[in-house]
Amino acid sequence: MKSAIQIAERLFATLAAETADPPGVTRDTYGAGEQKGHDIVRAEAEGMGLEVEIDAVGNLYMTLPGKDRSQPRILTGSHLDSVPHGGNYDGAAGVVAGLMLIADLMDTRTPPPVDITAVAFRGEESWFPTSYIGSSAALGLFDANDLQARRDDTHRTLVDHMTTSGFDPGVIERGEAQINPNSIVAFVEVHIEQGPALIGSNVPVGLVTAINGGFRHMEAVARGTWDHSGATPRRYRKDASLAVVDLAVILENAWDTIEARGQAATITFTQLATNPTLHGGSKVAGEVRFALDVRSEFPEVLDEVQGVLDAAIDIIFEKRGVTIDMGLRSQWPIACLDPALVDRMQACAESAGISAMRMPSGAGHDAAVMANVGIPTAMLFVRNANGSHNADETMDIEDLARAVSVLKAFALSHET
Amino acid sequence: MKSAIQIAERLFATLAAETADPPGVTRDTYGAGEQKGHDIVRAEAEGMGLEVEIDAVGNLYMTLPGKDRSQPRILTGSHLDSVPHGGNYDGAAGVVAGLMLIADLMDTRTPPPVDITAVAFRGEESWFPTSYIGSSAALGLFDANDLQARRDDTHRTLVDHMTTSGFDPGVIERGEAQINPNSIVAFVEVHIEQGPALIGSNVPVGLVTAINGGFRHMEAVARGTWDHSGATPRRYRKDASLAVVDLAVILENAWDTIEARGQAATITFTQLATNPTLHGGSKVAGEVRFALDVRSEFPEVLDEVQGVLDAAIDIIFEKRGVTIDMGLRSQWPIACLDPALVDRMQACAESAGISAMRMPSGAGHDAAVMANVGIPTAMLFVRNANGSHNADETMDIEDLARAVSVLKAFALSHET
Repeated sequence: MKSAIQIAERLFATLAAETADPPGVTRDTYGAGEQKGHDIVRAEAEGMGLEVEIDAVGNLYMTLPGKDRSQPRILTGSHLDSVPHGGNYDGAAGVVAGLMLIADLMDTRTPPPVDITAVAFRGEESWFPTSYIGSSAALGLFDANDLQARRDDTHRTLVDHMTTSGFDPGVIERGEAQINPNSIVAFVEVHIEQGPALIGSNVPVGLVTAINGGFRHMEAVARGTWDHSGATPRRYRKDASLAVVDLAVILENAWDTIEARGQAATITFTQLATNPTLHGGSKVAGEVRFALDVRSEFPEVLDEVQGVLDAAIDIIFEKRGVTIDMGLRSQWPIACLDPALVDRMQACAESAGISAMRMPSGAGHDAAVMANVGIPTAMLFVRNANGSHNADETMDIEDLARAVSVLKAFALSHET
Repeated sequence: MKSAIQIAERLFATLAAETADPPGVTRDTYGAGEQKGHDIVRAEAEGMGLEVEIDAVGNLYMTLPGKDRSQPRILTGSHLDSVPHGGNYDGAAGVVAGLMLIADLMDTRTPPPVDITAVAFRGEESWFPTSYIGSSAALGLFDANDLQARRDDTHRTLVDHMTTSGFDPGVIERGEAQINPNSIVAFVEVHIEQGPALIGSNVPVGLVTAINGGFRHMEAVARGTWDHSGATPRRYRKDASLAVVDLAVILENAWDTIEARGQAATITFTQLATNPTLHGGSKVAGEVRFALDVRSEFPEVLDEVQGVLDAAIDIIFEKRGVTIDMGLRSQWPIACLDPALVDRMQACAESAGISAMRMPSGAGHDAAVMANVGIPTAMLFVRNANGSHNADETMDIEDLARAVSVLKAFALSHET
């Protein structure tokens, strides 16, 4: 694994340097940052002599031929885009793990039984109000209506971003798949945990059993009335700030109820902002924009939160005279990973002498898309500190190598 | 009053056109917008042949000589700056009223018993985290430390803004007054009401009895941890958004208690924003900046809210692990207007046949500064719709003329 680790270290260093945007890195979906990530990884794969292919929507496939090329291949990888000012490992670690596996097999002159393809999907980090762009499009499942979704920062449409990046959104309009699920015997996504559970348990590798579903509103807005904060008595106010406060309180009460039953969910006000053009030091806020993110592994919990949200909007209008428009709703389904494959990963970890534990994934991943079309899918989490989606995200490269060892045991034990 | 109304209509039209910044107008404190306001008003005063003087900090004085120039003068006016995208009347109406009074006296060839000076103070709208800049500086009372306060939008210091505007902040450093309180027999500020009480009572003019005091934090910040919104279970979160929600709930509960006792206050979260550089659709908010504005006519109520605020910060840290730093605190004292002068204004309104009612002012005004150094001070509110600090602020010019009629009756009945 030594040369694989060297490759990984070099790739992470190059990615960090070339996509630096202090604090952290920015690899924007269908933008310059993501493209740089793809260029770096592609150059490495070409240097290794792999078969490199880029599909119509920009997903990158890097293949080491197996002994029997007629059999379905093993696909492993993740995404290369990041949130703004994110960490270097969320997504990239899984792509690098695929190249590490291939490098180690090449280094030890161990041809795999079937083709192994390391994949870098596009657009997992939702800079657009939609999700899993690259992996859904690869399977011909991306909703063509969402080509009109606008990127959070540029306000340009996805179709525009894809086209100016040199790709062909026409395949989405026509529903053309880029890969055939029947040609894939297994998809394994390696990904940093993004949470504290593995560190807390002192275990380097997690075996994911299910991926939470959820829904998100990126462009919600509470509209009241701009008034003078000193001259407007309380009864005349329509305070949009306090309306959003009410909504947060009502949803957190619902969260308490859900947890008291022993179920899990997350409810997050990820963004809040009084209108920066119109607010002031002595104005009652007439408009607050906010974003809300709700997740659970239980579909009935998601429905419950949606019901509480709908009712809250009416309650708050009655109380404050403030309207709340939640705007576009994006959602992603709960995904159950393949139980037999998870069992095999557990056995592979044991055979490789790597300690591993089962756990659900709170965050969504491209693996959910693969699992939901019936591709046998597993996910390996890698222990990491300081969560993710921030500049402090860290990971021990030895832990990534442990996950690659599990992946290697799986690949080499695969029977055609 | 006909030619005075024509002058007012022309001045308001010019101010609206030359400081337009849709929606509304922007006349930024010690910036281009405020300066344009001063230039327009000064040109009008010069055209009228008044004595025009600009003091070291940029306040504008426009004087019609009285019969006995050795006696203390009557000062009347307000400010010309506005909030960003504010209305055309908040502040400007009082300056225009002063010129209307003078124009009407000139038009009717009625020399006043003493000098009448219409004044336009600088910097009343707090684009800096400090208050009453021009009027306090005129009296030599502006705190020199606050010269280092930075403007909300430019982040440049007040001393820098004053200097580049061509004024001399040195007088503030040396505590030099620009006007002598003993030379002023009365200060009368005409101002739109900014609230709905006069319209609700169908009365055109308000006689202000007291001006609320208050305090304000423009740069408060709640700091938690940026985490992945899906991957971070609730117990590991330090959610800055929910910390600010907690603070709003605690303060609104205190507000309920205050009102239940029959006292009045306003508590306003005027600005809220997750860090726009670091937030994202799938991140727990690690930092929320906010601004808080608290006002009351009762000093003990202000102390009570401060106490609740201090205690809340500790409670929230215990509950969420989020620290709240309230940043710089600006405050302004409660001011009681001169009871004898308010009585005289009432009598003047009656003699002029103008319906008027007594009321407190929720908003702060330059009149508070004048009153607190012992200058006999009164305020006349003018009925207006749609509050203030917004583009929809409106006022009937006939109502302004009614306030000027009261002012005129006062000026002509003044005995030296």
